[in-house]
Amino acid sequence: MGPEIIREIEKIIPSERVLLDIADRYSYSFDASFGQYLPDIVIQPHNKEEISQLVKLANKYLIPIYPRGAATSLSGGPLPVKGGMVLDMSRLNRKLVIDRENLLAIVSPGVITADIHKKAEEAGLFYPPDPSSSQVATIGGNLLENSSGPRGLKYGTTKEYVIGLEVVTPLGDIIRTGGKTVKNVTGYDLTRLIVGSEGTLGIVTEAILRLIPKPQARKTMLAYFNDFVDSGHAITKILASGILPSAMELMDNACIRAVEAYRPSRLSVEAAAVIIIEVDGHPAAIEEEILKCKELCGTAGAIEVKVAQNEAERESIWNARKMVSPAITRMGPTKISEDATVPRSQIPAMMQRLNHIREKYQLNLVVFGHAGDGNLHPNIITDKRNIPEMKRVEDAVSEIFESAVELGGTLSGEHGIGILKSPYMEMELGEAGLLMMQKIKEAWDPNQILNPGKIFPTPGQTKVALT
Amino acid sequence: MGPEIIREIEKIIPSERVLLDIADRYSYSFDASFGQYLPDIVIQPHNKEEISQLVKLANKYLIPIYPRGAATSLSGGPLPVKGGMVLDMSRLNRKLVIDRENLLAIVSPGVITADIHKKAEEAGLFYPPDPSSSQVATIGGNLLENSSGPRGLKYGTTKEYVIGLEVVTPLGDIIRTGGKTVKNVTGYDLTRLIVGSEGTLGIVTEAILRLIPKPQARKTMLAYFNDFVDSGHAITKILASGILPSAMELMDNACIRAVEAYRPSRLSVEAAAVIIIEVDGHPAAIEEEILKCKELCGTAGAIEVKVAQNEAERESIWNARKMVSPAITRMGPTKISEDATVPRSQIPAMMQRLNHIREKYQLNLVVFGHAGDGNLHPNIITDKRNIPEMKRVEDAVSEIFESAVELGGTLSGEHGIGILKSPYMEMELGEAGLLMMQKIKEAWDPNQILNPGKIFPTPGQTKVALT
Repeated sequence: MGPEIIREIEKIIPSERVLLDIADRYSYSFDASFGQYLPDIVIQPHNKEEISQLVKLANKYLIPIYPRGAATSLSGGPLPVKGGMVLDMSRLNRKLVIDRENLLAIVSPGVITADIHKKAEEAGLFYPPDPSSSQVATIGGNLLENSSGPRGLKYGTTKEYVIGLEVVTPLGDIIRTGGKTVKNVTGYDLTRLIVGSEGTLGIVTEAILRLIPKPQARKTMLAYFNDFVDSGHAITKILASGILPSAMELMDNACIRAVEAYRPSRLSVEAAAVIIIEVDGHPAAIEEEILKCKELCGTAGAIEVKVAQNEAERESIWNARKMVSPAITRMGPTKISEDATVPRSQIPAMMQRLNHIREKYQLNLVVFGHAGDGNLHPNIITDKRNIPEMKRVEDAVSEIFESAVELGGTLSGEHGIGILKSPYMEMELGEAGLLMMQKIKEAWDPNQILNPGKIFPTPGQTKVALT
Repeated sequence: MGPEIIREIEKIIPSERVLLDIADRYSYSFDASFGQYLPDIVIQPHNKEEISQLVKLANKYLIPIYPRGAATSLSGGPLPVKGGMVLDMSRLNRKLVIDRENLLAIVSPGVITADIHKKAEEAGLFYPPDPSSSQVATIGGNLLENSSGPRGLKYGTTKEYVIGLEVVTPLGDIIRTGGKTVKNVTGYDLTRLIVGSEGTLGIVTEAILRLIPKPQARKTMLAYFNDFVDSGHAITKILASGILPSAMELMDNACIRAVEAYRPSRLSVEAAAVIIIEVDGHPAAIEEEILKCKELCGTAGAIEVKVAQNEAERESIWNARKMVSPAITRMGPTKISEDATVPRSQIPAMMQRLNHIREKYQLNLVVFGHAGDGNLHPNIITDKRNIPEMKRVEDAVSEIFESAVELGGTLSGEHGIGILKSPYMEMELGEAGLLMMQKIKEAWDPNQILNPGKIFPTPGQTKVALT
């Protein structure tokens, strides 16, 4: 980046918030996924006006801009793949207002998601989306990736709770979308277009989130199975019975063993799979529901069922679930994390396909995830220096995506496309469907300034290259 | 329309489904709003392939296309304001499949919304969106207008229940958006962009709707007030207490009297306002909630509270509510129906503004609506032949919109913009916000084929012209 451009940037942003040192830039070169890309410059803006001016400057000099929250993305969302400018959005974190009367939260993008949970619950309210990274991730990242987590099953994803945004457009204008009303049909739904756009259509500078009354009570249980596919049948049986649990999570044997090795949680390491079921609502309702879940797990072949008797037991179950990702990270140097999602009824079929893929490619493929909404997380533990194995990983990943799409599902349930799934977009969307997305991107961002290199495949690319 | 074009159309569609007679075309010249426009031709397509070919032909000859369901729109959605071709979508009504395992309904656009309710409930499931016109309206119209109705308060709008679409694009391609999974972050959310786009971005030929388990029980009550604004305070008190009723509906004195004159429903005609409150869920939960609602209405000044003791009493309450629109239609030759929506906490303030507007312009302004989500329906009963009064109506309508936006609300909660609210778009969205919507329209529909003349204001237009 030329000195003239840097001088212009320093007219907008004080130099202590403009990072040019290689050591500083290195810290912004990776996320929680795979791959590393060095930005030319890192800027820590404090407000929307600064961002607006930077975006205008970037358009003038054709500099790519990569907005970044806490970089917990599992698909490469914030990676500066074409160099340019990283915007560290974590400093825009001053606003976290709970509007109790209107059941809303008004938040800055740099606010940590768990802080929204905490503040809402203090007011007797509830913000359901709860990605595993919620203690670290920013709400801005959650918004742009449309994150969800275990409660998506009953409560939906981040998108279902965003009703208004303040956004800097790809040309540097500041606009507001939606507002403070749950019902709003004034023109196109730009709010939901921008949520989940992975930072390619705008930079969120404020959001209005919808809250709901906090559920009165909840009840949590564990059910162990001798057969991985049986646990899938238990899940579909429960959903078909008319119960909508607030979460239904799965861990296979490898995940159970990894958690017990990493931080013992009194899970049965002999089981082929365990599912965690949580119901919430009125105390009388959940008492009935948990009994019914227990019974249905039994008929599906559960070998053991344990209901948490108090909050400490409940927390221990959820801590074990939250340990899965760090625990399996210790199983090998490289982790490839997928989130292909299938219709609920296809959960057992997808489980069978994953068993088959594990055998066929002889890989350390472990499975956990939000099984209740069909959102499984097959993870491949490997070593990126082992080139022949990585080639098998590439083929296995392709086959996971193909299986999900063949079963009526999607490439990604919650992690986003980023750089890791873009080669498969046309397989799911078709040429015409993908083109409609590209037309929006081109119309809004003619200079390809915002997060270039994401979502859309490079022409001719048909498979992710991991080596 | 020239004979050559008609010959080309009749190569695509058999002539018995191509209507050219003035009497036939007249039947397609109006909707449930205001204004009348004669189309040049009406076509009754049977499938997506026919529609795709018609759209391609329309692009070749630059013919406007106006898709139309049951034409119950209150904002002019299907009106053929620039002539051209009306597509009567009501014949595309063959598919209504309830997929119990996946909690989904797969539907053709011409299916009547009430039929989806019925089929879902037979399977123990529930499709919440329930616009007042649900016995007549098509799901295709509901989708493109993002209709909602009383249950929006607890359950959200149509948009919250659409997870996949099959769409003919403005250039005639057939694409699929979303799919059968609740979680899907594969690229931009075209599903929610098209839902609520009022037929300007695509023609829906199939939809995948998300269903939920049917609530176990419900309980309904009426609360009467001597003061219109007091009823608004009751509503905000209940919401602030942590109860989320499935509906909270308001009728002012004029509406009560109109209903009693039209079809007596044992409402107290002396009250200034009545609110209908319905809670649903587990029997034990709703028993507690209805008692709490009763108590809160009392503290807000209710003069009488009646809880329905059985399903017949419940139905009689809802029938009275559904009679409001037909009943007030009989109060005068012309009805101007608005749906400006404010944040919940501003309901009492909006009520005061409406009282003021009624006095200031000396109009027959009656108010009912989905007060619980801030979605009021101020209706002006007038006579379009009375030009001086219509001028006052124009000013009153402008002031209603200004009030809603000033109070942090929106022009339209559920009726859509159509032709009646387009002059006010920039007031709410700003120039830059409106431009982002126009860019999408231009990128997708470069020839302005689909539903032209809607949503976007004519340059220089700042007020709706009713005379």
